[in-house]
Formats: sequence, structure tokens, C-alpha cells
Amino acid sequence: MPEQITLYTAKICPFAHRVELALAEAKVGFNRFEIDLSNKPEWYAPQVNPASKVPAIAYGGPQVPPDQPSPESVKIAESLILVEFVADLNPDCPILPKDPVERAKVRFFIDAVSNKFLPTYMGPVARGQPFEPFWDALEQLQALLPADKKYAVGDEFTAADIAIAPFLARMEVWLRNDIGAYKEGEGKKAAEYFFTGDRFARLVKYFEDIKARDSFKATFDADLIKEKYAARFAPLRAQAQVAAAA
Amino acid sequence: MPEQITLYTAKICPFAHRVELALAEAKVGFNRFEIDLSNKPEWYAPQVNPASKVPAIAYGGPQVPPDQPSPESVKIAESLILVEFVADLNPDCPILPKDPVERAKVRFFIDAVSNKFLPTYMGPVARGQPFEPFWDALEQLQALLPADKKYAVGDEFTAADIAIAPFLARMEVWLRNDIGAYKEGEGKKAAEYFFTGDRFARLVKYFEDIKARDSFKATFDADLIKEKYAARFAPLRAQAQVAAAA
Repeated sequence: MPEQITLYTAKICPFAHRVELALAEAKVGFNRFEIDLSNKPEWYAPQVNPASKVPAIAYGGPQVPPDQPSPESVKIAESLILVEFVADLNPDCPILPKDPVERAKVRFFIDAVSNKFLPTYMGPVARGQPFEPFWDALEQLQALLPADKKYAVGDEFTAADIAIAPFLARMEVWLRNDIGAYKEGEGKKAAEYFFTGDRFARLVKYFEDIKARDSFKATFDADLIKEKYAARFAPLRAQAQVAAAA
Repeated sequence: MPEQITLYTAKICPFAHRVELALAEAKVGFNRFEIDLSNKPEWYAPQVNPASKVPAIAYGGPQVPPDQPSPESVKIAESLILVEFVADLNPDCPILPKDPVERAKVRFFIDAVSNKFLPTYMGPVARGQPFEPFWDALEQLQALLPADKKYAVGDEFTAADIAIAPFLARMEVWLRNDIGAYKEGEGKKAAEYFFTGDRFARLVKYFEDIKARDSFKATFDADLIKEKYAARFAPLRAQAQVAAAA
């Protein structure tokens, strides 16, 4: 019998969403425990993840309630490490290809997500910064997509797609609902630019293919994200505009 | 017959050194091509690595001279991706353990090297910044080392050790030879603090165990690194002191 997996996660968090996607793709059963990021349980950092972040997995050990983690389970953190861990536990799940060259391509795309795209991701929504660096980074990712294949490195959905999907999904929510530190109306304008313009046609098609997957539908709740993002980012608009005027 | 591997590398570069260590551990034959980083051949970026950095591997395709790379070989870049690629090509080489939990531990250590240690690495040597953030980061790595095992995640030498070894080796060269943007004499003082004090006893022992490996001895030329580092970092001392006085 496989060892138990308990995932400590949060619906709002794109990093945690990666691991939920990997587990859904691998069709692995697991205990899901939602962490309230604004009010973390006091046992979480000392008993699960000293960095006090989600996602984390408690693997193996006895079956215990998630809020009473066993010292006998192994605790593993960091979203990309957990995605590879799920792939390593399930070698027949194609989220990590078997071929070393294909695996390297998956990791190269992930590296671009981590080091080119993510540094720009919070600029517009959290700090009201110009969209252009964010668009540039998305364009660099788009340039890595094969023209004739469905996903980032081929026709199989892999860890590369898992690395970016949660961020595109949250971007769609904040843009379409005009939630963010940018000026009122700029989100909707940017949504139109991204989703209906020529510049990102390939990336938009790619994102549609991701959204069509069962794993995505089962792990993303747009209404909940909208509500949480409105609470978190709407107050930043006023602050960013005061800062810009100063 | 295995596919050919051509490694584009540079003796001075710690990132490239990682891949040389992985290939030496895997006992894989390869063509080694030294790139002069201060005068890169004009074919390198367009034909091998658009980011124009080392390391990169050309894998497969026909046997060709390294300075005439074939369009038929696959080009792969980024040091950590290449270390995993070498491990994936050689599944019996223990630089990546077979057990998923052990693999996750290797990746967690590497993540700490990338995200906690490397951001501090150039501070003292290139910018004359205080040593303390650098020491703190080394202490965080040291805290991850098991007390009763030889290497970062156990008694086998793995990708975790490969990720940090080239940086410790270069640090030893710049400290012991007082090469860096810091004030004259501070390097030797820091060398004594690191190598003979109590604070880093576990890390120093770990580093000694790394240096004793054949793969390390075969891939590190301390005299050459000293000469190159003197040329590169000595002029920075004067600049840093002018900046500090301004």
C-alpha cells in the first residue's frame, strides 16, 4: 500500500496550486488540509514547515489527523520540489517525461518561469507598476512554446505547464475583474490586450488548453480567488496612487 | 553506443564546474571545449546557447569539432538542469538517489544554495560588502548538513554537494589569497575565521570531504583560479574603497 500523503495548501496560493495539479494529474489520493494564510495554526511552522509557507507535504508515517502531524512522517516543502516528488512517486504519470532530453526541456521552461516571469508577476497587481516588463516576460515564455504542439514541451501536459498554469489563472482573475494596485480600468484594458490582441495569441490558446483539463477544473475555484484577491489587492490601489503622486 | 556529449565550459566559472563534477562522477566521456568568457567566439550564442553563458551541452548528432556545432545536436543550458540531465542519462550514478524522498532532500538543499546562499555570494568579493550576510547564509547551509553523515543528504556524494562545491572552492581561493573588493587583509582574516574557528567546524569538515574526491581533484585547478580571480577582483578593491569613502 502506498504511503499516506497529507498536503498542506491554500486555495489562494499559486505555488500550492502547482502541487494540487500534480496530484490530480497523477490521480493520487491524499489528505488535503487548508491553511488560513492570514491566521496560520501555531503547530504549522514547528511541526510541518519551519518556513511557515504552503505548500508542504507530510509523507508516510501513521494515519493521523492533519492538524496533529506525526513526527514519523517526512515533511517536504517548496512547490517545484513537491511537483518532482509527485512525479518521482508516480513514474508512469507523464508530468515528467522519461526521456532525459525531454526532462531537460521541462526544467528549462520551469527555469524561465522562476527566473524570468515570476520576478515581474507582482509588479502590476501589487505595486501598480507598468505592465510592459510583465508582458515582456510572458512573451519570452510564449517564445518557448512549440508552434505545433499543445503544451510547453510537447503534446503531453507536464511539470512545465504545472509551473505556469496557476499564475496565468490568477492573472486572468485580477485582470478581468480589474483587481489590483494599478489605476481603475487598467485591468480590464490589459485583459482585452492580452486575451484578444495578436501579441499573445499563442499563449492564450495554450492557456485555453490548460483550462480545459480535468485537473485544472478540479483545482481552481475562480469565484473564491476573485473574492480573496479583491480583499487583498483592492486596498493597494489607493496606496499605489498616493505613492505615485508623492 | 551512447550519444556524444560536448560540454562548453570555462575553468573559472563555478556554474560550469558543477557540470564537470557531475560528468566526472558519472564517469562519462565527453568533449570539453573551453570558452574564453572575456572573448566569446561569435558562433557560440547563435549556435549553442542564446543566453551566451556557460555551461551548455550539445548532445547527440554527428561527431563534429566543438567549434562547428551541428544543428542536429540538442543544445541544453543551465547548470542545475545539466547536472540533472547527466544524472538522468546515468541512472546508476548515485548523484541523484533513486528514492523519491532522498531526491526531494537533494533538491531542498540545492534550493537553499540557489535562493539563500548565492544571493550573498558576490557581496564581499565583488562589492566589498560586509561578510556577515555571507556567513549567515553559509550557516543556514551548514544547519542542513546531517551531523552523522559525510555529505549534504547522506553518505553518498550527490547533486546537492555538486551545487555548492564550486562556490566553496572559489571562496577558499579568494579568502586565502586576500583577493577581493574588501579592504586589504580582510580576506586572510576571514579565511582564519572560517577555516579555524568554531562557527563553521561542520561545514569545513564537509568541504574537506568534498575536496578529497577524485572528481573534485580532476576538475579544480586552484592556481589557475587564483590567477584569474586576481585579474578580475583585485581592481575592484580600489573602486569599492572610493565608493565607501564617497
